[in-house]
Amino acid sequence: MRIDLNSVLGESFGPWPMGQDEALMASISSANVACGFHAGDPGAMRATIALAREKGVAIGAHPGFPDLVGFGRRELKATPQEVEDLVLYQVAALAGMAAAQGVTLQHVKAHGALYNMACRDRTLADAIAKAVASIDRSLILFGLPGSDLLRAGQAAGLRVAAEVFADRSYDADGSLTSRQKPGSVIHDTATVVARAVTMARDKQVVAVDGSTIGLQADTMCLHGDTPGAAALAKEIRRGLEAAGLRIAALRD
Amino acid sequence: MRIDLNSVLGESFGPWPMGQDEALMASISSANVACGFHAGDPGAMRATIALAREKGVAIGAHPGFPDLVGFGRRELKATPQEVEDLVLYQVAALAGMAAAQGVTLQHVKAHGALYNMACRDRTLADAIAKAVASIDRSLILFGLPGSDLLRAGQAAGLRVAAEVFADRSYDADGSLTSRQKPGSVIHDTATVVARAVTMARDKQVVAVDGSTIGLQADTMCLHGDTPGAAALAKEIRRGLEAAGLRIAALRD
Amino acid sequence: MRIDLNSVLGESFGPWPMGQDEALMASISSANVACGFHAGDPGAMRATIALAREKGVAIGAHPGFPDLVGFGRRELKATPQEVEDLVLYQVAALAGMAAAQGVTLQHVKAHGALYNMACRDRTLADAIAKAVASIDRSLILFGLPGSDLLRAGQAAGLRVAAEVFADRSYDADGSLTSRQKPGSVIHDTATVVARAVTMARDKQVVAVDGSTIGLQADTMCLHGDTPGAAALAKEIRRGLEAAGLRIAALRD
Amino acid sequence: MRIDLNSVLGESFGPWPMGQDEALMASISSANVACGFHAGDPGAMRATIALAREKGVAIGAHPGFPDLVGFGRRELKATPQEVEDLVLYQVAALAGMAAAQGVTLQHVKAHGALYNMACRDRTLADAIAKAVASIDRSLILFGLPGSDLLRAGQAAGLRVAAEVFADRSYDADGSLTSRQKPGSVIHDTATVVARAVTMARDKQVVAVDGSTIGLQADTMCLHGDTPGAAALAKEIRRGLEAAGLRIAALRD
Repeated sequence: MRIDLNSVLGESFGPWPMGQDEALMASISSANVACGFHAGDPGAMRATIALAREKGVAIGAHPGFPDLVGFGRRELKATPQEVEDLVLYQVAALAGMAAAQGVTLQHVKAHGALYNMACRDRTLADAIAKAVASIDRSLILFGLPGSDLLRAGQAAGLRVAAEVFADRSYDADGSLTSRQKPGSVIHDTATVVARAVTMARDKQVVAVDGSTIGLQADTMCLHGDTPGAAALAKEIRRGLEAAGLRIAALRD
Repeated sequence: MRIDLNSVLGESFGPWPMGQDEALMASISSANVACGFHAGDPGAMRATIALAREKGVAIGAHPGFPDLVGFGRRELKATPQEVEDLVLYQVAALAGMAAAQGVTLQHVKAHGALYNMACRDRTLADAIAKAVASIDRSLILFGLPGSDLLRAGQAAGLRVAAEVFADRSYDADGSLTSRQKPGSVIHDTATVVARAVTMARDKQVVAVDGSTIGLQADTMCLHGDTPGAAALAKEIRRGLEAAGLRIAALRD
Repeated sequence: MRIDLNSVLGESFGPWPMGQDEALMASISSANVACGFHAGDPGAMRATIALAREKGVAIGAHPGFPDLVGFGRRELKATPQEVEDLVLYQVAALAGMAAAQGVTLQHVKAHGALYNMACRDRTLADAIAKAVASIDRSLILFGLPGSDLLRAGQAAGLRVAAEVFADRSYDADGSLTSRQKPGSVIHDTATVVARAVTMARDKQVVAVDGSTIGLQADTMCLHGDTPGAAALAKEIRRGLEAAGLRIAALRD
Repeated sequence: MRIDLNSVLGESFGPWPMGQDEALMASISSANVACGFHAGDPGAMRATIALAREKGVAIGAHPGFPDLVGFGRRELKATPQEVEDLVLYQVAALAGMAAAQGVTLQHVKAHGALYNMACRDRTLADAIAKAVASIDRSLILFGLPGSDLLRAGQAAGLRVAAEVFADRSYDADGSLTSRQKPGSVIHDTATVVARAVTMARDKQVVAVDGSTIGLQADTMCLHGDTPGAAALAKEIRRGLEAAGLRIAALRD
C-alpha cells in the first residue's frame, strides 16, 4: 500500500517569498512547481528544482493562467487552443530547466482556475492533455477522481493520477464540497489525518451526508501556503506511515 | 562557399502583428524566434515554429529581457545569475514547443540589449553560454565576430557563429559603427547587396575609414521589421546566389 | 438633432502599432483611450491625448481587464471589488495624464469583456459606476441601451450615454445579435450608413426579424481596428451630416 | 524643530504580502505608496491609502521602473521621455485613487533604481520633475541632499525635501557610502537612533572618515521591508521625540 503526497512549491515571485518550501519538502514525495504565469519566476524555478532534487522529491509542472495579481485563481475564458499553448509553453520551460539540472519531470498538475475548469470541461481538458502528451508521453497527468481531466489524459495515452484532499469535505457523488459551504474545509488535525488514512488505505471517504463512498486516490494534495501547513503535512505523513502506508512518488 | 541567412520572426504579441514572417521565410535559412519576454507569446511561438518547419527553415531561440514596452531594447542591469535564469527559461520554453512539433533547435541568438551587452561583457556572455550549454550542447551560439559572447560560447564548449550585418557600416576595428553616427545604416539596396557578397564570399568589409578589413562571417542577419524588409532580403539572397554562394542553415 | 461618434484610440503597445488614429480622429467626436491593462502604455496614452486635444475630440477612458495577450476580450472572473479597483486605477491614470495636458475627461467606456460582462451583471456594473463616480461625478458612463451598466450609472448619479453600433444587427428585444450568428456584423457600407442615420435620427433600428424597434442612441461606436475602418467612419459621418445630424461630443 | 519620517508602504502584490504596514504606520508621518509597476496593485493601493488616511499619515507616490521580478531595483536605460511618461502614469493613478478617498497627495519619491539614477542624472531628474509638476505643482519632490533630483525639482518650481537615512553611513562629500562597502549599513539600534537625532536636530552626520559634515535633512527614511523594521522605526521615533523633535508630515 502506497500513496504519493504532493504539494505546490516555488510560488515565490521576484522579491516576494511564499510558502515553506524547505519544511514541506521533508513531508512530500512530489512537488508541483509554478512556472511563471501565476507565480514563480525563472530564478525561483531553478532554486526549487535544485531543492527538490537534493531532497529526492519528484518534480512536476504546475502551469496556470497568466494572472499574477489573481494568482491564477480567477477563471479566464481562454480558448482550447490558447490553453494548449500556454500549458505547452510553461511545461516546456520547466522541463528544460529541470533537464538542465539532470532531472526529468514526473507529472503535470494544472493550477487553480485552470485545474478546476479543466476538471469539468472536456475541451479544455483535452487541450491540456494534448499539450502534455506532445512534450513527453511519460508525464503523469493529475486530476480529480472521475473528472474530465483524467478522462482526457487517458484518451491522450497518458498515465493519470487521481488526486484527493484530506482537508476537504466531499459530496455524496464524490465531488469536492463547494468552498462556499460551511465545513467544506476541515481544520481539525486529527480528523484530517484520519481522513487521509481512510482515503489512502481504503480508497474511501465519508461524505457530507454521512455515506461512505469509494474514491480513487493515487496522490494526496497537501496545501503549502497556509500557516501551519508544514506542521500539518508532517502530521499527515506520520499518520499515513503509522497506518502502514508507504509514501512514494508515482514514478518510483 | 556558403552562408546562413538569419532573421527574427514571431515578434507578434497578442493582438498585435509584427513583421512579414511569411515573405521573409522564403529568403532565409535560419529563424530567430522571440520567446515571450520582449515579444512573442505561446500562440505566436507555436505558429512560427509550424511555419518554419513547413518552409524548411532552421529554428533558433531569441531570448530577451523581460521588457515588452521597450521591446527588449533597453539595457537592464540584471545579474549574471538572473541572465542565466531568464535565458534558460526562454530557450527551454521554445525548445520544448519545437520538440512538440518534431523540431530540434539549431541555435540561440540573444535579442536586443541583451545581445549587445553580452557581446562586450564576459560575465553576461558566460551566463548566456552556461544556460545554452545546460539545455543542449549541440546548440550554436550567435554573436558578433570577436565578441565576448563568441568567446564565452567557445569556452563553454558550444559551436559558435559569427554574425554580420550587410546594411550596417563597420569601424576599422571590426566593430559596428554606432547607430548614433550618420551613415551607420546603409539604405541603398545595391550597396547592401554588394557588401553582403563581399562579407559572405571574401570574409571582408570596407570600413568607414576606407580600409578593407577581415570579418568572420558565418551567418548574416536580415532585418525583418522595417518596411521593405522582405524585398531587401530577397535581393540579398539573389545577389549572394548570383555570386555563387549557397544559402544554407548552419546545421546543414 | 445630434449624435456623438466614438471610437477606440491609443491601442498601440510598446513597439506594436494598432489602429488608424490620425485618420479616425477626423471623423469622430469622442475618443476612448486604452489605459495600459489590455492595450496602451504611458507613451501611447500621452500621444493619443495630445492628438485628440489638437483635433478637438473629447477624451474618455477605456479601462479593461489586465490581459494584454487576450486584448481584454477574454472574460475574467474578477470580484466586484477587484473590478472597482482596476477601473479606478486606469481611469485615474488617464485622467491625470489628460489633466497634465489641460484636458478634462468626458466619459468612461469599459472595454471588451469587461464592458460585455458589466452590461448584464449589475454587481460588476455597480463596481464600475462606483469607481467612476468616486473620481469625477461629471464623467459620462457608456453602456448598451437598457443595460445594467446604464442603470448602475444612473443609480450612482452619473450621466449615462446609450451606445449603438451601425454595423451590428439587433435582435427584436434590442440586444445585439450574437457574433456567433451569421449576419451579426454588417459589411455593406451603404447599409451601415443607412442604419446609422435611422439610429441617430429616428432612434430606431430594423431587427433581424424584420420588426422596427426603438433604440436609445446617444453615442455611436465606430470600429477602429479593422481594415477600411477610417474610410467607413468617414462615410458614416458624411451620411449622418447629409441627413441633417450634427456630430458633436456629449460634453458640448 | 521638526522632521518628517517616511517609509515605503503598499508593496504587497497580488497574493504576496510584504512589509509591516500597520505597525509602521504608528511611527511615520509620510507613506510612500508603490504604484503598480515594481510593486503594489490597485487593491493594495486602495487599502494602503485607506490605512494611511485612518492613521493621519500623509501619502506620497512611489513610482518605479516596470520590473516586478527585479522589484524596480535594476537600472533600466529608459529615455527621459519614457521616464516622464511612466512617472506621470503612476503618480496620476495613485493621485486619482487617493482623491477618490478624499486624500490629496503630499509628495513624490521615486523608487529604487529610478531614484538612484535620477539623483545623479539631471536629464532623468528633469523628466521626473516635469511629470510631477504637470500633475500638481504643490507636490513635494524627495531626493538626496545636493542631488540632481532636488535641483531639477527646484528648477521646475516644486518644493523639495532632502532625504536622509539614519542607518546608512555617509562619505565625507555627503553622499551615501556604497552598499558594496563594509559598514555601509548600520545595524546597531542605539547608533542608528543617535545618528537620527544628530541628523534631524543638528543637520549633521559623522562621515566614514570621522569628519562631521552638514546635511540637509527634511525627511528621514525608515526602511519597512526588513525583519525588525517596525521595532527600529518605533525606537527612532521615540529617540527623536525624546530629543525634542516633533515628528510631522511636510504638509503640516
